Amino acid sequence: MHIKLGLIGFGNVLRAFAELLQFKAPIIERDYDIQFSVVGISTHSHGTAIDPNGLDLRAALTIEALGELHHGEPLFDTFDFIEKCPADVMLEATWLDPKTGQPATDYVGASLEMGKHVVTANKGPVAFAHSELTRLARERNLGFFYESTVMDGVPIHSMRREGLLAVDVLKIRGVLNSTTNYILTRLQQGISMEEAIRDAQNIGVAETDPSNDIDGWDASIKIAILANTFMDADLRPIDVERTGIRNVTMEQAQAAHRVGKGLKLLCEAYREGSEVKARVQPMPLDSSDPLSLLEGTNTGFVVVTDILNRIVVMGGDSGPDTTAYGMLVDAINIARGRRSW
Amino acid sequence: MHIKLGLIGFGNVLRAFAELLQFKAPIIERDYDIQFSVVGISTHSHGTAIDPNGLDLRAALTIEALGELHHGEPLFDTFDFIEKCPADVMLEATWLDPKTGQPATDYVGASLEMGKHVVTANKGPVAFAHSELTRLARERNLGFFYESTVMDGVPIHSMRREGLLAVDVLKIRGVLNSTTNYILTRLQQGISMEEAIRDAQNIGVAETDPSNDIDGWDASIKIAILANTFMDADLRPIDVERTGIRNVTMEQAQAAHRVGKGLKLLCEAYREGSEVKARVQPMPLDSSDPLSLLEGTNTGFVVVTDILNRIVVMGGDSGPDTTAYGMLVDAINIARGRRSW
Repeated sequence: MHIKLGLIGFGNVLRAFAELLQFKAPIIERDYDIQFSVVGISTHSHGTAIDPNGLDLRAALTIEALGELHHGEPLFDTFDFIEKCPADVMLEATWLDPKTGQPATDYVGASLEMGKHVVTANKGPVAFAHSELTRLARERNLGFFYESTVMDGVPIHSMRREGLLAVDVLKIRGVLNSTTNYILTRLQQGISMEEAIRDAQNIGVAETDPSNDIDGWDASIKIAILANTFMDADLRPIDVERTGIRNVTMEQAQAAHRVGKGLKLLCEAYREGSEVKARVQPMPLDSSDPLSLLEGTNTGFVVVTDILNRIVVMGGDSGPDTTAYGMLVDAINIARGRRSW
Repeated sequence: MHIKLGLIGFGNVLRAFAELLQFKAPIIERDYDIQFSVVGISTHSHGTAIDPNGLDLRAALTIEALGELHHGEPLFDTFDFIEKCPADVMLEATWLDPKTGQPATDYVGASLEMGKHVVTANKGPVAFAHSELTRLARERNLGFFYESTVMDGVPIHSMRREGLLAVDVLKIRGVLNSTTNYILTRLQQGISMEEAIRDAQNIGVAETDPSNDIDGWDASIKIAILANTFMDADLRPIDVERTGIRNVTMEQAQAAHRVGKGLKLLCEAYREGSEVKARVQPMPLDSSDPLSLLEGTNTGFVVVTDILNRIVVMGGDSGPDTTAYGMLVDAINIARGRRSW
């Protein structure tokens, strides 16, 4: 089976995807009888290329201007690319405006409208438009998969889709933002907040403007996603009661540590009557709580359901390759006919 | 979509399944458009019944002799039942001989031969004949699912099938036997081995003859299953290097606890050259190891792959209802067309 892929974005994640695809091609063909080719790549500032016969990924990964690989009429913008790219599946990993979820949400919507399956690693579409996009995908019998939006490639959304059927999810607790977890771990080790942020920036864990992480926005987006996908809620990040770690001190982190607790930016989604609510706040966790063991950039979460009273899932180190891996799994699942229902 | 089920066995697990099926029928129909009916139940000593129009589960759960509900010609034995039961999916949860995997393995094989999908909660078929049964199922495009064989209904086999694609699983570490974990937890609390075993028997966690658990056989069967399903090995329980907890003392468990460690019956599967090996042995685990947090009847495991360097999955309290839940999820997945490939 030959499946054609189109990439919207070609930053760290989708470049890692292109590498991983080449590395894993033999095992994908052996185990699933699937051959992937990339027939289009669209970037913000390095040009755009479509080749219906498949782009040379080695070349795409090395040249400066993708336009050199383009075959066909000129392309005007990303929506024009989405329309003209002859792909079965569009993979989306572009920049995210955490306040609006755009432009990713519109890219995903446009791809589905044009009859293309979608894999996204972008939190925007799932935090801001999960129910609409799922309805759109279902009407057209298309896959809309987003494994890498939370905990990278650790298989939590596929767990919900394939392993947690016909349950009521009562509660979710998680440590979902690796930047703040890294910083809190450093505070606990006796480093000041300022230094810890600088450390995180130096190793590429925090952005130049770290406020999206520090103020709990990324964590709010992620718990909104989990509330929407695990608890059938329809929350937006702004609906999450949010306290970041900006005012947490080294002394507080160390005081928690001294009494055997781990200070974490805890994300929670829970039911209150018929409503699903969510909150994000720094919280000292007991040493008997598995989430207290998450150090540095590790993330994890606990799901409580009406039948299984607890499922804990925790990941290890993450990076562009683990995000790319989740997208690859999604693409294989779409190719072998998996849908959300 | 109407799916007919046949139950091989009607002990604690499949009785819990019959209860759960009635409880969850509305949500299963709403979310997956599936209506299940049970058209046959076969037991060892309470008779056997087939009704092509669907058995009354309320009645089946209350009467002594199932034969009263039987419609049709007399049935001779379980194989005769498997042949004549007009089910789409056979659910198997019978007694297991841990040394041979029989008779469950033959029941599963016969069901597949007769073109029926299979869900089993029985460790035998997967520990003793995973590759043969999988081949048989694949040749006939049948589902052969076994979520509840390890960690009950905690979705670990569906994680392998749907979320860990095209990876090399390098290593698995787990605390998989709840009876020994309960006993080790009691030893650590200052209870003697003899008393701890009696406690476990009193609350229904250990059998009258506890040697299958105590001597590490159940743990060996489970790590063999995980080696076979996650690492494409072809191990039998006898291939597992096995040390049980029979000779562990209260003093050892408490000594480990005093230095912050948890004494656990650790199951491991790992690669040595091109071979997959497995072992089971009591081991003090550091407090930074998530498996050290598993107390009482909780179980969990860690998977290490070439891309995701660590995935930890841990469950909570378990019982017949959590085992039944895994079987229900398997049945829904078969009904909605999921297969192992």
